[in-house]
Amino acid sequence: MVRVITMDDVRNLVRKLTLNTIFLRLADSLEYDFSNWSSFKLEPRLATHFPHGVIELMPVCNQEYYSFKYVNGHPGNPKDNKSTVVAIGMLADIESGYPVLISEMTLLTALRTATISAVASKYLAHKGAKTFGMIGTGAQSEFQVLAHHYILGVNQIYYYDIDAKAMQKFENNLAGYDLHLHRCEDVKSVIKHSEIITTATADKRASKIIDSSWLQKGVHLNAIGGDCPGKTEIDPELTARAKVVVELLDQTKTEGEIQHLAGNNVHAELWEIIVGQKPGREAADEITLFDSVGFALEDYSVLRLIYALAEEYQIGHVLDLLPDSSDPKDLFSLLN
Amino acid sequence: MVRVITMDDVRNLVRKLTLNTIFLRLADSLEYDFSNWSSFKLEPRLATHFPHGVIELMPVCNQEYYSFKYVNGHPGNPKDNKSTVVAIGMLADIESGYPVLISEMTLLTALRTATISAVASKYLAHKGAKTFGMIGTGAQSEFQVLAHHYILGVNQIYYYDIDAKAMQKFENNLAGYDLHLHRCEDVKSVIKHSEIITTATADKRASKIIDSSWLQKGVHLNAIGGDCPGKTEIDPELTARAKVVVELLDQTKTEGEIQHLAGNNVHAELWEIIVGQKPGREAADEITLFDSVGFALEDYSVLRLIYALAEEYQIGHVLDLLPDSSDPKDLFSLLN
Repeated sequence: MVRVITMDDVRNLVRKLTLNTIFLRLADSLEYDFSNWSSFKLEPRLATHFPHGVIELMPVCNQEYYSFKYVNGHPGNPKDNKSTVVAIGMLADIESGYPVLISEMTLLTALRTATISAVASKYLAHKGAKTFGMIGTGAQSEFQVLAHHYILGVNQIYYYDIDAKAMQKFENNLAGYDLHLHRCEDVKSVIKHSEIITTATADKRASKIIDSSWLQKGVHLNAIGGDCPGKTEIDPELTARAKVVVELLDQTKTEGEIQHLAGNNVHAELWEIIVGQKPGREAADEITLFDSVGFALEDYSVLRLIYALAEEYQIGHVLDLLPDSSDPKDLFSLLN
Repeated sequence: MVRVITMDDVRNLVRKLTLNTIFLRLADSLEYDFSNWSSFKLEPRLATHFPHGVIELMPVCNQEYYSFKYVNGHPGNPKDNKSTVVAIGMLADIESGYPVLISEMTLLTALRTATISAVASKYLAHKGAKTFGMIGTGAQSEFQVLAHHYILGVNQIYYYDIDAKAMQKFENNLAGYDLHLHRCEDVKSVIKHSEIITTATADKRASKIIDSSWLQKGVHLNAIGGDCPGKTEIDPELTARAKVVVELLDQTKTEGEIQHLAGNNVHAELWEIIVGQKPGREAADEITLFDSVGFALEDYSVLRLIYALAEEYQIGHVLDLLPDSSDPKDLFSLLN
């Protein structure tokens, strides 16, 4: 039997455990898996390109589970009222090769992306930071704010988007939380007030939403909108100036902000900081940058956590997607 | 919404349509897709090897759908009452990148494997053959017999397995069909009586279950048990002597019976015969061999067919595995 987790099941889980608990558990899960970095076998992602989009399979495994995510990227989808990116994931037991979980991963990807940013901020931002800047108030924005709120305690939120409706949506979605929301007039104004900043813009070009000269010393920046070749969002001069931390160097070199710099100025992969092999923030005035492109191990982490929680709270649809024959030679009788 | 097809759903579909109809529809579906060979983008399979098994993702796509199969191979599973191989597949719409179907594929793989053998037999065996030999009466055997029965009309069935219990199981499973079952004392005796022979043995070595000298002129052989490097089941001398047809030459060279011959004696890929670019059987006395290793396009074909049938007959579980937001920028509100 395979447990199948729908969007509604994720909602039920959030209702039962609270979003606060989910973010804290997920941060633990990510830190645990990143700490065991060398035990994972990282496979290249398998990308199939079309004129109007891309479909990818992203697998990863360790001694316990094999996981992969099916994910698309179709920039033209919104005009048909569809999401640009949707995802479905699977977790399988290594010992038997039997799948144990299939899950929606559109919400889970949003949760893990925000949480890994907050984990990076934990190691790279000023301790005790209370101010958080959100540049781009699209699909990822509320997740970023709440991950940082629950994991690090930020509560003063500065934000800007070129789309006023997106800011209104952001405000509506965050109205019920213990946050002080400050709508800003431009990116520069967000930056002026924030100790931690996340950029999550969607422009599929090399854009420069932040000019290097605007940045104050000592800030930490999570750049998550630059995530494929040709698509970046911040000033290369800023990337060159910052202490840069990545997920997996080889992948970020071609997909992240550092693609303009050939990856030469990278300080560390995040796991090296988590296990203490390399330092996080070393000086009050340094600018740190987590150049996050999204990584298969993060999908593994969230799938492993959701599987454990779904088993514990009996959430999801348990479906007969696998043979349960007592005689493996007798597949045919399963048809009757 | 994504339609999810369980083992029980496959059973329901077979009950509604009959196995006869399923095999005929599947043969049509396979011939249709093989006829449009050049419209498919064949991706390499992504295999992850472990000391005790392998996990593979097998993707393929054309202008309409992207499909992939998750499949394992764990030879030690039977001692834990588990199947060596299980599989789950997915079909996605190319236009949007949205998945439309997730299905059990253990049964569907058995159905498509048997059907592609019968399609090969249709082009390569004597017209009007009535006798069919089954060597190895394991998990695939009944599927092979019934595919050949319904698609080609064979009804005299000769069979042998070193495991008498497996022959008993085979007889029990096929008792209700319009077939004459002849249990044989050895492989040689099966061969003596059969115009079409399928070998489906499971030994993970280079074994020689058929000696070249036993074979009568004019027979057609489907060899489906040799399906990975180092694993073959028939005499290389026989492979050298036969007119050999494969699914995809590059793949079969490393996985099929022809791995001993570096693929030098291959007559055609099956699609070339289906579209009429190359001849099938040309002489009454030639020995033909379909060296079948299993191929992603066959999974595509069966998933496409099952999707159409499941929609038509409203079979399966329709689950909210994808966002249905009318505002793609508002992912967060899907959590509430």
